[in-house]
Amino acid sequence: MSAIVKQPDPITACLIIIGNEILSGRTQDANLAIVGKKCDTLGIRLTEARVIADVEADIVETVNTCRRLFTYVFTTGGIGPTHDDITAAAIARAFNVEVVRNKEAVNAMDRYYEPRRLTDARLKMADIPEGARLIDNPVSGAPGFQLENVFVLPGVPSIMDAMFDGLTDRLVGGDPILTDNVTTNLLESEIAAGLGVLQEKYPDVSMGSYPYFRKGKLGVNLVLRGTDAGRMNAAADELATTIMRLKGKVLNR
Amino acid sequence: MSAIVKQPDPITACLIIIGNEILSGRTQDANLAIVGKKCDTLGIRLTEARVIADVEADIVETVNTCRRLFTYVFTTGGIGPTHDDITAAAIARAFNVEVVRNKEAVNAMDRYYEPRRLTDARLKMADIPEGARLIDNPVSGAPGFQLENVFVLPGVPSIMDAMFDGLTDRLVGGDPILTDNVTTNLLESEIAAGLGVLQEKYPDVSMGSYPYFRKGKLGVNLVLRGTDAGRMNAAADELATTIMRLKGKVLNR
Repeated sequence: MSAIVKQPDPITACLIIIGNEILSGRTQDANLAIVGKKCDTLGIRLTEARVIADVEADIVETVNTCRRLFTYVFTTGGIGPTHDDITAAAIARAFNVEVVRNKEAVNAMDRYYEPRRLTDARLKMADIPEGARLIDNPVSGAPGFQLENVFVLPGVPSIMDAMFDGLTDRLVGGDPILTDNVTTNLLESEIAAGLGVLQEKYPDVSMGSYPYFRKGKLGVNLVLRGTDAGRMNAAADELATTIMRLKGKVLNR
Repeated sequence: MSAIVKQPDPITACLIIIGNEILSGRTQDANLAIVGKKCDTLGIRLTEARVIADVEADIVETVNTCRRLFTYVFTTGGIGPTHDDITAAAIARAFNVEVVRNKEAVNAMDRYYEPRRLTDARLKMADIPEGARLIDNPVSGAPGFQLENVFVLPGVPSIMDAMFDGLTDRLVGGDPILTDNVTTNLLESEIAAGLGVLQEKYPDVSMGSYPYFRKGKLGVNLVLRGTDAGRMNAAADELATTIMRLKGKVLNR
């Protein structure tokens, strides 16, 4: 047996946001922030997100690239009933399987919709890649699905949010990633050196610096991320001390 | 000479959003919507966006992949004065050039800042890959830069927005991409078939269907995109007729 203790590989995820409306700037994506926060809680590092168009070849290539690079891949968008909802077909092509009408999905939608309202258009949402495991939709009936490490979710944020919460027993994460922030009226250039010194002292606490310009006032939001609450608190306290030493104000503690 | 008229390749772009704070969900990205709309006006197809962390290897790999795949690559974020602002160094590595203190950038910042306020921390923002062409910053002094087809911009949306506007003479696009929308109280499944028929009739007008759930009401926002205003209007009119034929309301025309 080796005496070297292997560092466990970090558990990573990529979010693929599918939809022309996000790329064109017409619709503001809200799913990245939701998935980012949920991944933190689960101890999964969301290390990338990609926004792509409703184009089958792009979806196939992006899904096939990402499912090999990341522990988990989540997709949002494109699983509704209209002609531009091509995600299920594209995912099937990526996995080289057929799309079939899924009986379990039909039953789930049948329970949700009144009789006679489960129209042909709605039934399209039960056409799902063969072999996929369904993801329950407690809000509007039509399920998402999972194939291997790829989880296919809808684009409407409130529905996506509720469906993601049903996945927690399928996702194996690590220690929850904690986050804290310290806001100051100092400029980024004024805090830069002191922050750099603290980052070296706390290599296990990631420190990010985000300038803002709000209501005519400049300042910086300093964000700490890590998995050890004690180290996070110590770093935040030292950061506040550094700010006061530089004659700045700590605005949020 | 061939009788076949070659279709010009579409001019494409990818936006690379650099920043842990976006991935963690702490900060809502606003740059994608801004760049998406500007690309439409310029006739450039923004076909992908990637959100990546402040990690040098990730930036290098993503930039090198994307600059070969797209006509233009824009990056936002990570060019400030703090330790986590590593974009300039990473871009230099991607292009295999050195980072040097750029005199033109120092001069630009010198004009912007009062004497004595051009501190060492701020001067870090004048450290730019060798051979890069600067992008003027009319808001806060520190410039962005361009290397080949890669345009490096800051993360603060108001500053990025102003700097992007200075790029229009460097970006060659096509016909502006027009957009129109028709909002209805019909459900997506109710409009699906009629919309599909119209999409086949107007292959040159891309039609997207985006369900919404606002103030307790369900509905659909139907978005049309194309480059021919006459065809766009005709398609929107037919769509409104289709909605009324289905006993739906057209909510925004």
